[in-house]
Amino acid sequence: MLEYTHRKYPSVLLERAVEELSKLPGVGRRTALRLALHLLRCDKAATERLASALVSLRLEVKYCRSCHNICDADLCEICSDRNRDGALLCVVENVREMMAVESTGQFRGLYHVLGGVISPLDGIGPGDIEVDSLVERVAAGGVTEVILALSATMEGDTTCFFIYRKLAPTGVGVSVIARGVAVGDELSYADELTLGRSIMQRIPFEIKEAL
Amino acid sequence: MLEYTHRKYPSVLLERAVEELSKLPGVGRRTALRLALHLLRCDKAATERLASALVSLRLEVKYCRSCHNICDADLCEICSDRNRDGALLCVVENVREMMAVESTGQFRGLYHVLGGVISPLDGIGPGDIEVDSLVERVAAGGVTEVILALSATMEGDTTCFFIYRKLAPTGVGVSVIARGVAVGDELSYADELTLGRSIMQRIPFEIKEAL
Repeated sequence: MLEYTHRKYPSVLLERAVEELSKLPGVGRRTALRLALHLLRCDKAATERLASALVSLRLEVKYCRSCHNICDADLCEICSDRNRDGALLCVVENVREMMAVESTGQFRGLYHVLGGVISPLDGIGPGDIEVDSLVERVAAGGVTEVILALSATMEGDTTCFFIYRKLAPTGVGVSVIARGVAVGDELSYADELTLGRSIMQRIPFEIKEAL
Repeated sequence: MLEYTHRKYPSVLLERAVEELSKLPGVGRRTALRLALHLLRCDKAATERLASALVSLRLEVKYCRSCHNICDADLCEICSDRNRDGALLCVVENVREMMAVESTGQFRGLYHVLGGVISPLDGIGPGDIEVDSLVERVAAGGVTEVILALSATMEGDTTCFFIYRKLAPTGVGVSVIARGVAVGDELSYADELTLGRSIMQRIPFEIKEAL
């Protein structure tokens, strides 16, 4: 593969577009050039729609005052849904994880979006994520269980531990999502840690009526 | 991997941004969401710079009146460079290929950017690419050799053949770039067609002073 980094672009406009596109995560200069040339082949309105969608999102985005999820109003659709169970709070790292949990259809409570996990290496400390507002929310009453649905990483585990300590004085029940062998995975390919946790956290066998 | 296609976005603004981003080639809804959330974490000016770079490129882009390369003026830098050999024309598919040839440092002539290759499946016919302007350029005189530097694909070969036929009446010399075993490739891994062409198009062995 040829290296595009030190290559001279035939146009300053093209160079600037490539420069800006390549700042996006996972987009190198080669991909950026491909994207820029793609836009040149589409009609002008398409580029304008893309640009305006990005600027509108960035400038007009709102965050739910209760769960800190991205939303269009003061309170998000989930928080304002009276059919959902306000006694259950599911703590997630960000919007993507919230959407992932939501799409399982297994959770009918409310969420609390942290906006990150504690990660000293990335300079994210406990004060940079929405833990205080979580404690306030729980302290205000009405919540019986907080489910920690964070990634099974060092950062996720650290954050779980930190939140657990912060919530202890409120007396609320705190649980974490099960870690174990993924559905569809062959046991022989599971790593030892995961398999170990699966065994330690075994549950009584029962025949489920419907899943 | 979970499927994001039918997932409900918590915000219309976010949905619109994901929608527009996922129209880019190679960007699915999952990647689009990641890019949109990335922009939300960066400062507002970054998104505005990206958007304005894309719109400027699309609205203000110019094409060289001689070689049809993207440029900032009426005539591109290469075409207006008096040190380059106007008797040699290298025909390329688009700007990326031009940049690739240019970065080899092996070509000091001028280019002719077709803007595509003939591809009936994609609805690109001979009239959609800059062949007529190439013939005019050659007919105007001063060009002694046209080098066809197109991809070694069915579409590239078809286009080479079409251009060759179109240029025949002008009497200009037409050559194609060598096809063969790539530098650094092991012979046993080369496919039969490439190896066959390498043998058919063998050249006298000589010790090069410098490469």
